[in-house]
Amino acid sequence: MQPSYSKATYRLYDDKADFHKKAEGIAVGLTVGSWTELPEAAKEQMQKHLGKVVSVSIHDPLDAAPGERYADITIAYPDVNFSRDIPAFLVTAFGKLSMDGKIKLTDIEPSADFLSAFPGPKFGVQGVRDLLGVHDRPLVMSIFKSVIGHDLGNLREQFLQQALGGVDLIKDDEILFENPLTPLEQRVEACMSAAREAERTTGQKLLYFTNLTGSTFQLKANAKRAIAAGANGLLFNVLAYGFDALAELAADPDINVPIAAHPALAGALYPSLHHGISASLLLGKLMRIAGADLSLFPSPYGSVVMPKAENLAVMEALLDPTLPQKPAFPVPSAGIHPGLVPLIMGDFGPEVVVNAGGGVHGHPGGSAAGGRAFRQAVDAVNSGSTLEAYAQKHEELSIAIQRWGVRTS
Amino acid sequence: MQPSYSKATYRLYDDKADFHKKAEGIAVGLTVGSWTELPEAAKEQMQKHLGKVVSVSIHDPLDAAPGERYADITIAYPDVNFSRDIPAFLVTAFGKLSMDGKIKLTDIEPSADFLSAFPGPKFGVQGVRDLLGVHDRPLVMSIFKSVIGHDLGNLREQFLQQALGGVDLIKDDEILFENPLTPLEQRVEACMSAAREAERTTGQKLLYFTNLTGSTFQLKANAKRAIAAGANGLLFNVLAYGFDALAELAADPDINVPIAAHPALAGALYPSLHHGISASLLLGKLMRIAGADLSLFPSPYGSVVMPKAENLAVMEALLDPTLPQKPAFPVPSAGIHPGLVPLIMGDFGPEVVVNAGGGVHGHPGGSAAGGRAFRQAVDAVNSGSTLEAYAQKHEELSIAIQRWGVRTS
Ligand SMILES: [Mg+2]
Ligand SMILES: [Mg+2]
Repeated sequence: MQPSYSKATYRLYDDKADFHKKAEGIAVGLTVGSWTELPEAAKEQMQKHLGKVVSVSIHDPLDAAPGERYADITIAYPDVNFSRDIPAFLVTAFGKLSMDGKIKLTDIEPSADFLSAFPGPKFGVQGVRDLLGVHDRPLVMSIFKSVIGHDLGNLREQFLQQALGGVDLIKDDEILFENPLTPLEQRVEACMSAAREAERTTGQKLLYFTNLTGSTFQLKANAKRAIAAGANGLLFNVLAYGFDALAELAADPDINVPIAAHPALAGALYPSLHHGISASLLLGKLMRIAGADLSLFPSPYGSVVMPKAENLAVMEALLDPTLPQKPAFPVPSAGIHPGLVPLIMGDFGPEVVVNAGGGVHGHPGGSAAGGRAFRQAVDAVNSGSTLEAYAQKHEELSIAIQRWGVRTS
Repeated sequence: MQPSYSKATYRLYDDKADFHKKAEGIAVGLTVGSWTELPEAAKEQMQKHLGKVVSVSIHDPLDAAPGERYADITIAYPDVNFSRDIPAFLVTAFGKLSMDGKIKLTDIEPSADFLSAFPGPKFGVQGVRDLLGVHDRPLVMSIFKSVIGHDLGNLREQFLQQALGGVDLIKDDEILFENPLTPLEQRVEACMSAAREAERTTGQKLLYFTNLTGSTFQLKANAKRAIAAGANGLLFNVLAYGFDALAELAADPDINVPIAAHPALAGALYPSLHHGISASLLLGKLMRIAGADLSLFPSPYGSVVMPKAENLAVMEALLDPTLPQKPAFPVPSAGIHPGLVPLIMGDFGPEVVVNAGGGVHGHPGGSAAGGRAFRQAVDAVNSGSTLEAYAQKHEELSIAIQRWGVRTS
């Protein structure tokens, strides 16, 4: 059998380093440990465990200022060295190395063999669309305005108003944990009864992503409790538990609802130029391989926290047709109002979830009107109309663009 | 009952921000969501869920260059808002906030109530010393020279040579995963039989930290398999699985062996000035609360990856007498040779593990001689002698300091 390799790409900043030597050091040091001093017989035995330098691309302009010189280095790691789980590959490729100077993990390219261990999203873009019966427009998601300190009745009413506005997806706040006011199963029952109530008016299906929390070894049981209570979606703070927890939840046949990955804690990992893990890998490729059906990330439209280029790189990783796992929905979040919908659909294309909190609840006509304004904005763009023109016959959208304006770039 | 609060401290860099307003925004935004617009009756109900600004300390020298202005902000979060697990507190205090500009989580001060949910290290410094029967000197740990691609016989021989040198602790490489050459239980049996063989010569107890790997929901079972096969220690890549996995392993009464926390992936989180989580919190306080008996981190003695001040802050967090959890051993790692022992003991004091790989195996007399050189170096410092003087009657140490020299600062 041909040995197979999984690749990792890093960007290393260093004003003076011999990057080729550094790359060799990584390929040997993170695999067999030492090479040149090995006897020939040992080399023969160890060859299949030895990492390989795939490429070293040095950025070193003649007039480089201090701090500008870097290299993009790709190393191939023999699959035989690690088990088929994300912790094993990340610890191999970026465990010790993460602490070795100014180095950021920018991408991985796992082998087909490695990838084959990951069923990925159970639903993905198409599956979520099928559940909702919506195939011709971006989806609209809304977030509770406020959850902490509210009781079941209040939460249900918030849910109902959101649902009446015609949103497709409603998610818990990621900071809603198990608590006496709105315990998991009762919360699910209350919200799903509101979903059914709204459906009688809207005629529309809806997915509710309830926050999956608690101790690691109870996650599967909690997910199944939520599902037994009627939950048809789960929100999960992936980075607080590791990618493997997501992968195993997604691979469990009994957890048969879509999972939305929340990016909580991601800002500790992606924004630095010199350290961490790129957003496209962290919130794009790894989330999808591990099985997120939707991945949330900070939009570039609010107070800027993730630049647009990174947003689009996350989207590309989530939708990339060359990965065997199903594509996952990109969900650019924060700072979204109806006047941004043309821009979002222009930037992301049709496979996107328009996700809003303040842009729904801040509508002068209330949350239901806010949801309608979003749906109208999506319909406007889909029908080739400007928001302004469409608003002439759609009151909620009209009020929304009076409130927030229309942004075109 | 008095409401109790857990605190988090952040360093925010911003040339212009109103840091007091920012602090208020965090205290409200990460708890009840909004405050000033709430009706009075709602305020009364929500008061106990509202975060509080504890302090805002602004560093803004008159002649500050761009990028120099920052504030240290401490926020108190009501314990009633989150469950008693580390993911819940981290997601509350640094989930969304991690993505909000140049902000680093520098410390947390969980309430007594929150801390009471964490039994912490089962053994800690004293317990590990008791297991070994060593109370009067720093411990010496060694690491396999090379593990990938080696079979059981080779691994056993490496183990035996290390054990014969008189080291107290031997740990797997963190990149040794489940594999056909050295499967978990057979590896444990082979290594523990080498430990017993060495003990007949050295008369000395030894702990073997075997690498606990695999899928998240199998970790407990794998730990118990290792222990049933004779393992008397576990190495764990905590950050690949999250702090809660460690906390639950440490709290399991059947996992009755010390756990050494490996810092793999930590470099993605602690080194940036502007993002992430400080080393003292990540590898110090959180590791200890979650139950690590030993915590490894990059020493300041090799090619510098963690400055000495941060090393000492990690140590302080691991040993801080005011925390209810047992103190955990600091294990500064990488670049350690016998000539550094006086410096290590000077910097860290007596409660430290001297941990070496190359400094053991690179000894011209072999790995056993390398271990002896370390033990001799420790005995030299403990007896008030210089290494040079002690080396006159101790050949292995003499050879080691010829090889690596003695570093005093
Ligand atoms: Mg939220
Ligand atoms: Mg290692």
